[in-house]
Amino acid sequence: MLKIFKIGGNVVDNPEKLDKFLTDFSTIEGKKILVHGGGKIATPVSKALGIETTMINGRRVTDGETLKVVTMVYAGLINKTIVSKLQKLGTNSIGLCGADGKFIVSRKRSAEPVDYGFVGDPDVDKFGVDTAQRLIDNGFNIVVAPITYSEEGDLLNTNADTVAQTIALGMSKIYDTELIYCFEKPGVLMDVDDDSSVIKSITPEYFEQLKTDSVVADGMLPKIENAIRAVRGGVKSVVICSSDCIKREGYGGTVITE
Amino acid sequence: MLKIFKIGGNVVDNPEKLDKFLTDFSTIEGKKILVHGGGKIATPVSKALGIETTMINGRRVTDGETLKVVTMVYAGLINKTIVSKLQKLGTNSIGLCGADGKFIVSRKRSAEPVDYGFVGDPDVDKFGVDTAQRLIDNGFNIVVAPITYSEEGDLLNTNADTVAQTIALGMSKIYDTELIYCFEKPGVLMDVDDDSSVIKSITPEYFEQLKTDSVVADGMLPKIENAIRAVRGGVKSVVICSSDCIKREGYGGTVITE
Repeated sequence: MLKIFKIGGNVVDNPEKLDKFLTDFSTIEGKKILVHGGGKIATPVSKALGIETTMINGRRVTDGETLKVVTMVYAGLINKTIVSKLQKLGTNSIGLCGADGKFIVSRKRSAEPVDYGFVGDPDVDKFGVDTAQRLIDNGFNIVVAPITYSEEGDLLNTNADTVAQTIALGMSKIYDTELIYCFEKPGVLMDVDDDSSVIKSITPEYFEQLKTDSVVADGMLPKIENAIRAVRGGVKSVVICSSDCIKREGYGGTVITE
Repeated sequence: MLKIFKIGGNVVDNPEKLDKFLTDFSTIEGKKILVHGGGKIATPVSKALGIETTMINGRRVTDGETLKVVTMVYAGLINKTIVSKLQKLGTNSIGLCGADGKFIVSRKRSAEPVDYGFVGDPDVDKFGVDTAQRLIDNGFNIVVAPITYSEEGDLLNTNADTVAQTIALGMSKIYDTELIYCFEKPGVLMDVDDDSSVIKSITPEYFEQLKTDSVVADGMLPKIENAIRAVRGGVKSVVICSSDCIKREGYGGTVITE
């Protein structure tokens, strides 16, 4: 089983949480890939550089200057910090963005109806399965920054959940794959204020009901949608859990099933 | 023959020169590695972030905040921009810093007599020859940022000429290697104002004479010293030439010989 872990900004931005996660991650046996989000640091860096951060519907607009900042922060600072920490922990890692080995090829998103700029949607059919397999078979643990590559030669800012889903789908052609979305909560919660109210499993039908009942909303919606697409596309198991719990049986989280 | 090309800041900072170099580089047959310098962009980025840039004897002092900036700029922005341009040119590349695959292990420089901060001197004996060989044998062209890794788990800012020399020395154990230092001049010049005055070859003895006669000075001194160490350590050929001339026979530059 190839395990693809994704950690988000809440883990990346919190050195204590990040260190605990990486320590646990480094002890997990077998083939594994780590995808990390960007965290919040791109915003103050942009601001210091005099680049205005524009958000539309909660999403960052990536103009040319912002693309430089996210490339610096995500593929440079965060990615190499994680790789160096993993090396220290004895996990031989290589950090990639989507351009490295044409690992993740995206289409630049259309400027209509909203122009998000240099933002990419990965193309699973063009996923660099050869690159991944060669690195994994040679004993490298892959650490992926959410910057992808277009065939026009551009780097593109890309949602890290979608990057993780693309890798899981692409790798499911050659390995049994498990996708583990790690975040700050122990799973999808029935009551957002009660960490013990983890929903054990969600089917697509149950998800529709949870939406209708407004149990899940906001950032959780695209995460579950990504998870459902992954399960439907051939990923064996998708779990949403806390970054603190990856050593627990079943991760103590929410399993997304078909 | 494995060819290790190094381009400096003057090429990295000049999009036209960089594009010409990469176009030529992508057509060079055989195994090859590209090492790039940092260019000047780290300085305005540091300034914008309110980090004071301190230079001692022409060298940047790398405190903790400056290390973050150079990691962002060198291993993020510059490295991934070069990788994406090479992919567009059809050269399948993977960008690394020294932490990736423990490619380049350094010792943090002693704080005495001058504390340069997070600056590393590579240890050739700990060079990641396995990492390089696995990547090269799998068809990847390696692009290297001048950020190295200490066994204490730190990232370290490192002179790019020295990084290139370390790679050439390390790889010379398993391949015949050629090291090509590319910069803005056509070679080492007898008369710094006359580009046609390229010195065809320099031996260690001739280098001593050139120093005595003040023909070579400043930044050229460590470059030639690096080149001489490489030749003495087993690198088959070391050339100092213009980044515009890598398609020319013998690169039209200065050959450093033992």
